[in-house]
Amino acid sequence: MSELRKDPVSGRWVIIAPERATRPADFQFQPPSARAGFCPFCEGNEDKTPPEIAAFRAGGSRANGPGWRVRAVPNKFPVLRVEASPDNRGVGTYDCMNGLGAHEIIVNNPRHCVSLSEMEPAEIEEALWMCRERLTDLKRDSRLTYGLLFQNVGAEAGSTLEHSHFQLIVLPVVPIAVERELDGAARFHGYRGRCLFCDLIRQELADCARIVDDEGNFVVFAPYASRFPFEMWILPKMHASHFEDMTRIQAEELSHVLRKALRSMETALRRPPYNLVVHTMPLNQGNVPHYHWHIEVLPRVIEVAGFEWGADFYINPVAPESAAAFMRGESGE
Amino acid sequence: MSELRKDPVSGRWVIIAPERATRPADFQFQPPSARAGFCPFCEGNEDKTPPEIAAFRAGGSRANGPGWRVRAVPNKFPVLRVEASPDNRGVGTYDCMNGLGAHEIIVNNPRHCVSLSEMEPAEIEEALWMCRERLTDLKRDSRLTYGLLFQNVGAEAGSTLEHSHFQLIVLPVVPIAVERELDGAARFHGYRGRCLFCDLIRQELADCARIVDDEGNFVVFAPYASRFPFEMWILPKMHASHFEDMTRIQAEELSHVLRKALRSMETALRRPPYNLVVHTMPLNQGNVPHYHWHIEVLPRVIEVAGFEWGADFYINPVAPESAAAFMRGESGE
Repeated sequence: MSELRKDPVSGRWVIIAPERATRPADFQFQPPSARAGFCPFCEGNEDKTPPEIAAFRAGGSRANGPGWRVRAVPNKFPVLRVEASPDNRGVGTYDCMNGLGAHEIIVNNPRHCVSLSEMEPAEIEEALWMCRERLTDLKRDSRLTYGLLFQNVGAEAGSTLEHSHFQLIVLPVVPIAVERELDGAARFHGYRGRCLFCDLIRQELADCARIVDDEGNFVVFAPYASRFPFEMWILPKMHASHFEDMTRIQAEELSHVLRKALRSMETALRRPPYNLVVHTMPLNQGNVPHYHWHIEVLPRVIEVAGFEWGADFYINPVAPESAAAFMRGESGE
Repeated sequence: MSELRKDPVSGRWVIIAPERATRPADFQFQPPSARAGFCPFCEGNEDKTPPEIAAFRAGGSRANGPGWRVRAVPNKFPVLRVEASPDNRGVGTYDCMNGLGAHEIIVNNPRHCVSLSEMEPAEIEEALWMCRERLTDLKRDSRLTYGLLFQNVGAEAGSTLEHSHFQLIVLPVVPIAVERELDGAARFHGYRGRCLFCDLIRQELADCARIVDDEGNFVVFAPYASRFPFEMWILPKMHASHFEDMTRIQAEELSHVLRKALRSMETALRRPPYNLVVHTMPLNQGNVPHYHWHIEVLPRVIEVAGFEWGADFYINPVAPESAAAFMRGESGE
């Protein structure tokens, strides 16, 4: 029988309907033939992007030339710009403001990798550290409210450039998906005096069924109310509101955990397209006891249709317990 | 410059970034080659679906045989079942219940049409009337809380069977997307004493820029904060909370308006895949002054990626004003 499960953070229900799928292996990806062609993100092609904002480089190498390990550049076609003035205004019943913000690209590696999983842990660590640096820098502009870090991997996940990169879209408002998480977490904390995410980590570690990995300061699990087959969340075990408050030691730990988690998922599903999103506190707010930053990995292996768009309700044909077992390397159901 | 716009109903912001697209025609669909094969929804194949729940039939024709005009059948692979007992329970921090509900198919027409736009208005009227009958019938089961009517048209919109049909998923909880609309609308009404949707209709009719059609008791417009290029909302002008309270005359009017709106969109975009969703009040609640049922049509012409999944924030490269002008038959920008 199918089961309805409620995500305690967002309040969203999902239908876990495993009888609709036979085995997790049914979701394995059939990769399209490799795309060839010129890549503006590869080392040596620095003049094909807008001038770099920041880079970690070999001593003696020059900005906008080779010799970098991670490179942050403005998006060539930004959806938002820091030069805009917000000019927040009403239009009858509607609200409107100009496209103030920032849209940056963090090129994770000079080599042409597609997924972070192909990089060495030390390289991933530097990419994460650059994300942290960019958030910390943009935080100084008090007009900017939220920095959303994400990755699209694979054309079916919305990627237009294959070379592994983070996008950072910095917004003058808190996106509603995060606002809902903040609200849900604040309500829980108001009532019980504990962080909801800390509670979830404790319950998942005690239960084990949905754990994908548990290593040092980080835990990876398939969330109880996973929207998508093989969805994974990665959380620091110690309470922390802001991704950009991560220490270098934590970044190093995270690079190992993230690589292993992505490799598990990519082995299980044969390198499917996926989206990776960092959920953290708004830039202009301090630490709070109720919000806990985390990474969400969303494999794009099923079509989203009218029910999902119309209801924000999801039908997930793979129980997260099966997905976690499969990603731990245990055989599918 | 791009613009941030807030949807007053859901509170969701979108980025209207028209400089990223050149012309609305850029979103025209390249249809895949026609799929052939057997269709279980065509007249004569009644034994290939579960036994019918209801049908509008020619006098003398027999259930589960030919002679029908519209036919409601259970989904062969239902995600929810009326036989389940809800058994709502806590699992540590989580909430869970069994998959109680219903999952029905309304086959709109005995002929093999793909979109409602290919049907005659009188046929669309009967399909809408059957949707209304099914909702009215399911309402008698007090355990059922919400009936979500939707259509997936085209494989890229999640359709697995091409033959035009509605799906009706009946849930034991109100989906969060609708709950957010109800909350937003109740807040607006609490503050101003008016229906938010009635206000929007008044403003759109006065402004004209986003109107796609205005006929009799119905209005069609591209919403101010459209998530997707060429998104359309269809609303009754007279305040009404429940789709299923529609009169036969309104169903007749709606059939003409819906057909024309879909044809406009399909001409503009060369028959793209789309989702169509009916948002109405929960089954177990009476009429309210703040909620106004409506239809949302969501063409699936752009990829949804990490930003949208992670933030519930959308980047729409077509201003709704251009989309509406294009659908009214005026040349693109």
